[in-house]
Amino acid sequence: MTIDEPFATGQAAQGSNDLEQPLPLSQALLLPRLVIENTTPVIEGGLYAAKAIVGQAVTVSSKVFADGHDKLAVILRWRPVRSESWHVVTMTDRGNDLWDAQFSVQEVGRFLFSIEAWIDRFASYCYELEKKFAAAVPVSLELQEGRLLLLQSAERSEGIGQQQLQRLHDGLPGMAIEDQVATLLKAETAMLMAQADHRAYLSRSHEFPLEVERERAQFASWYELFPRSITDDPARHGTFNDVHKRLPMIRDMGFDVLYFPPIHPIGRSFRKGPNNALQAGPDDPGSPYAIGSDEGGHEAIHPQLGSREDFRRLVAAAADHGLEIALDFAIQCSQDHPWLKEHPGWFSWRPDGTIRYAENPPKKYQDIVNVDFYAADAIPSLWLALRDIILCWVAEGVKIYRVDNPHTKPLPFWQWLIEDVRSHHPDVIFLAEAFTKPAMMARLGKIGYSQSYTYFTWRNTKAELQTYFSELNQPPWAYCYRPNFFVNTPDINPFFLHDSGRAGFLIRAALATMGSGLWGMYSGFELCESAPIPGKEEYLDSEKYEIRPRDFSAPGNIIAEIAQLNRIRRQNPALQTHLGIEFYNVWNDNILYFGKRTADRGNFILVAISLDPHAAQEAHFELPLWELGLDDHAATHGEDLMSGHRWTWYGKTQWMRIEPWHLPFGIWRIEKAL
Amino acid sequence: MTIDEPFATGQAAQGSNDLEQPLPLSQALLLPRLVIENTTPVIEGGLYAAKAIVGQAVTVSSKVFADGHDKLAVILRWRPVRSESWHVVTMTDRGNDLWDAQFSVQEVGRFLFSIEAWIDRFASYCYELEKKFAAAVPVSLELQEGRLLLLQSAERSEGIGQQQLQRLHDGLPGMAIEDQVATLLKAETAMLMAQADHRAYLSRSHEFPLEVERERAQFASWYELFPRSITDDPARHGTFNDVHKRLPMIRDMGFDVLYFPPIHPIGRSFRKGPNNALQAGPDDPGSPYAIGSDEGGHEAIHPQLGSREDFRRLVAAAADHGLEIALDFAIQCSQDHPWLKEHPGWFSWRPDGTIRYAENPPKKYQDIVNVDFYAADAIPSLWLALRDIILCWVAEGVKIYRVDNPHTKPLPFWQWLIEDVRSHHPDVIFLAEAFTKPAMMARLGKIGYSQSYTYFTWRNTKAELQTYFSELNQPPWAYCYRPNFFVNTPDINPFFLHDSGRAGFLIRAALATMGSGLWGMYSGFELCESAPIPGKEEYLDSEKYEIRPRDFSAPGNIIAEIAQLNRIRRQNPALQTHLGIEFYNVWNDNILYFGKRTADRGNFILVAISLDPHAAQEAHFELPLWELGLDDHAATHGEDLMSGHRWTWYGKTQWMRIEPWHLPFGIWRIEKAL
Repeated sequence: MTIDEPFATGQAAQGSNDLEQPLPLSQALLLPRLVIENTTPVIEGGLYAAKAIVGQAVTVSSKVFADGHDKLAVILRWRPVRSESWHVVTMTDRGNDLWDAQFSVQEVGRFLFSIEAWIDRFASYCYELEKKFAAAVPVSLELQEGRLLLLQSAERSEGIGQQQLQRLHDGLPGMAIEDQVATLLKAETAMLMAQADHRAYLSRSHEFPLEVERERAQFASWYELFPRSITDDPARHGTFNDVHKRLPMIRDMGFDVLYFPPIHPIGRSFRKGPNNALQAGPDDPGSPYAIGSDEGGHEAIHPQLGSREDFRRLVAAAADHGLEIALDFAIQCSQDHPWLKEHPGWFSWRPDGTIRYAENPPKKYQDIVNVDFYAADAIPSLWLALRDIILCWVAEGVKIYRVDNPHTKPLPFWQWLIEDVRSHHPDVIFLAEAFTKPAMMARLGKIGYSQSYTYFTWRNTKAELQTYFSELNQPPWAYCYRPNFFVNTPDINPFFLHDSGRAGFLIRAALATMGSGLWGMYSGFELCESAPIPGKEEYLDSEKYEIRPRDFSAPGNIIAEIAQLNRIRRQNPALQTHLGIEFYNVWNDNILYFGKRTADRGNFILVAISLDPHAAQEAHFELPLWELGLDDHAATHGEDLMSGHRWTWYGKTQWMRIEPWHLPFGIWRIEKAL
Repeated sequence: MTIDEPFATGQAAQGSNDLEQPLPLSQALLLPRLVIENTTPVIEGGLYAAKAIVGQAVTVSSKVFADGHDKLAVILRWRPVRSESWHVVTMTDRGNDLWDAQFSVQEVGRFLFSIEAWIDRFASYCYELEKKFAAAVPVSLELQEGRLLLLQSAERSEGIGQQQLQRLHDGLPGMAIEDQVATLLKAETAMLMAQADHRAYLSRSHEFPLEVERERAQFASWYELFPRSITDDPARHGTFNDVHKRLPMIRDMGFDVLYFPPIHPIGRSFRKGPNNALQAGPDDPGSPYAIGSDEGGHEAIHPQLGSREDFRRLVAAAADHGLEIALDFAIQCSQDHPWLKEHPGWFSWRPDGTIRYAENPPKKYQDIVNVDFYAADAIPSLWLALRDIILCWVAEGVKIYRVDNPHTKPLPFWQWLIEDVRSHHPDVIFLAEAFTKPAMMARLGKIGYSQSYTYFTWRNTKAELQTYFSELNQPPWAYCYRPNFFVNTPDINPFFLHDSGRAGFLIRAALATMGSGLWGMYSGFELCESAPIPGKEEYLDSEKYEIRPRDFSAPGNIIAEIAQLNRIRRQNPALQTHLGIEFYNVWNDNILYFGKRTADRGNFILVAISLDPHAAQEAHFELPLWELGLDDHAATHGEDLMSGHRWTWYGKTQWMRIEPWHLPFGIWRIEKAL
């Protein structure tokens, strides 16, 4: 009697694609009757993959509805792209047409998911039968219709299902009316009928991609150092072998990623001297970002750091300490890079035959030249050569790349490179070092970057931090962008730290470690180094241009606190992501106060950070008892995760005092008092 | 040297459509280098048309960006679907990668628009040249490059443009350096170069549809009446001819749409009596929603209302009074509808051979049967027959339809019907009478409904009203859903009005008339009728089931106030849409206070409505001086649009007192004091 064929999938089925003509009736009849819309997590209609982590639940939700009052059945299907067979999860109606379901996957790689929905005829029938019977309306005609539905389903079925449905159908006439109703309404019947359902008006969503990465894409603590500075004497260039002795201390601070700026040969032409001086002295080491000399390019190792064998041993030793090496991928060349001679067609040349170097008029960066991705001679050889640089280091065991200035290279290049590398090595992680406008920051995440640098260092006030942390928890950011909160970098010596003293470093460390699953620290931070070039957000005597030995046991350091913060992160799953943050009431604009909790509330952490490094701050605040299903007078257990101190709170409104000369923040685990 | 061919348009070009394979390099090279995203107004990626009004500016915005620091050129193109030639508007950079442009069209119908963007090589060149020259950097090499750019452009050009570029090129070497720079940077040169631009890395957005309707789709005041009640005697059935004498009074109240519930023959079987009684007496007129008898169906006129000729004369007379007749399109049949015999295959039948009537178990609506849109015998004959009902009444001059319960009929049916009707009669307006969950409400707007009933009658508190009005100003609602605020309907006698007295009616009239460009009133509201069925949101002695003559000059009516509200709407463009609302501070939770203003601020209306019909309310409030570019101490002129009283306000903070026994609201026009 009715059209019950599944409706075609895909966008064309959702509406007229020919925008110039009114929808023809023949096409209208093929349009899906049910609407599946607003599916999450989806990036740009499914053009790019949403992000997920292996072993962690992905919640998929959709608005699903149809005309009229029929009951709907909605399922989520998912599969790895490498497999043809779908897993199926029944979706749950959460009200207001919102349906959701969860699944988690046990391997990294690309997955697909989609939603299917249809009119559940038997459920609709049962709903009406139950209401009528309860209201003592005569149902003999309804029972006749029920038998017909059983019969039709039996006819569509095979094997045991068919026999059971037929038996149900045949048994009904002999029963009393109330028994017939009970038989039709029982769960077993519903299950048999669901198996035999012909899925009337079946609608399908698009298939949406999901990129599943390993845990370190979302939860990691990065430590950045210049290997050449691991020396006791600025005149002696540190080496990979020197780094070995730093590993225990970095591990003990709780870091798990050890990141080096470029380790390749450094150009001699236009080499920069200390503090970015235009002229380098003969012994100045130069910026490692001026990559390439006659000793090699991006696949070579700067000879003063050691040999390839030394590098391999360092990678292995780091791994033994639970540390994974991350390398810098900076697509730029010194004027001595071998490519300038081997591949002049990869670069831009000026009418006088000179090469076009980097400029920000009137500033000139003659030590750096950039490749031209769309030069005729660069396609596809340059693209392949750049991809091969990554593959070369992957072969050395490096699976994490911090990419320098990706926003100044074409987006299609990155999309291709990341997909290509990850198709063979799905455990490779890319961190985008883009500091630019928000649209590009998000876009780099959408096209494949695992994680990203952020505006964190420029968010200082309570309003700024709440707005920023909240925004990163909202779409599209929540689905495409994992923020790595670096507290400092060789390029960024935050103004806030210039005169904040030790308390300021503790404030920023607490904000970063508690705010996101990903944070990073450039060495010197733990020693509260902050001497700037006056008036600038840059370090004086920047390590980018000189060798900077350090005394890592200098007094006043915050090594113990950093170690404890990282320990707290490892022990509390709620802190292993930037997602799931909620801000609560505290009546003091100098105190940022928020909660992080796992979806099941099994791990619930409260964080209060004073943003004032100088004076004590105190305030009343609210414990989020409602989140734990408790009333306003309930008792809860608190535990100070920095000190281990435990207590019981009574009621919702509490009071705190934060003394920055002691510790400018509090981190408390809260749980129901039983 | 570089790829400068335009990149392919459409979704495929934006990313890999094959989600199962990593992006191949060959395809990556064809992806657009520039990103055009977040274009507005766009509904569901362009699957459905955004809404616009003839003669009113449409603002189109996009995020447009590329890698690197090149200058971009961005244009908006638009055209009616009936024409091949595009209009072009240059888009303006508003910062943070946001570009926008405006256009307006002078005819109703379907339009398309799209965005194009490319790297503006000459603008990038000029930017650098200017900065370098200003910083006294030697530019002789840059001048050489400039000449080369001129030459290349000349070679790409024809006619006068070529000659002018060639002349510019040839003239440069003879000039002083500063004159060469000035020549290259002058506006004329930029214009010539823009004309010759080969649009490097041209990217195109999709083409997005825009449905342009006449003004009444967005700005109209509806008056609803039952023609049969236009009589002095409940025993005498009113007629179309009787309605003539009501026209001047309805016009004088400022309405411009006169809407009738169904005017078709009413079924006799299972006819309902007064107050929805299951048994009708022999003289009971029945519900006009039980459509169809042996006197005809949806294309016929109920004989007691008059003849087709009478109807035509009424349509014409209404037009003479500035009133447009709107009819009700209710797709449902009484059991006496001719279709039951002529087209039994359009309906659902039960196993005992009886027809399936409407039910909401355990309630039965035996006077109503519904068609089955997807019954085998209904495709396509039923769909065409329903469309032809609309065309039949369009032929009688009716161009506005209030559609009864559209959410219980298939969405593809509506999409087809509306597109089909509007393709021949683009001035036809459809109002969706859907009261259901939000997703469906929005969807009906997306697929083509011009305007929609709303949750307005159930929004009473300040928080509810602010939230709801604001939501309707946000995407997706702002682009797809025009709210028609009915203050009452034959089905809805709002609880708020049951004991609010006259002041309550004034409050709701002010909220509706000031809140949206579209509002509606069902007769009796102006007389402050509110007698309910006790405890229910329904009228006692509902006009749906009986003839209800009224004395429209009864004391205590609010006719003068309604007339003034409608007059204020006509005189102030800011009030002719629900868009452009902004809530301002007033320190009293019983007072709703907002502004409506045209984009240029030329018309700026402030509205303060007390939500308390019983007691006086007073409060300090803020004049939004910042919106007028004024400081906090500025003087402004105010005019009370209800009374005509004028004054000068000094400063931002003012005080108001609202006495509901006088008038429960104030409407003020504000302007800068010169």
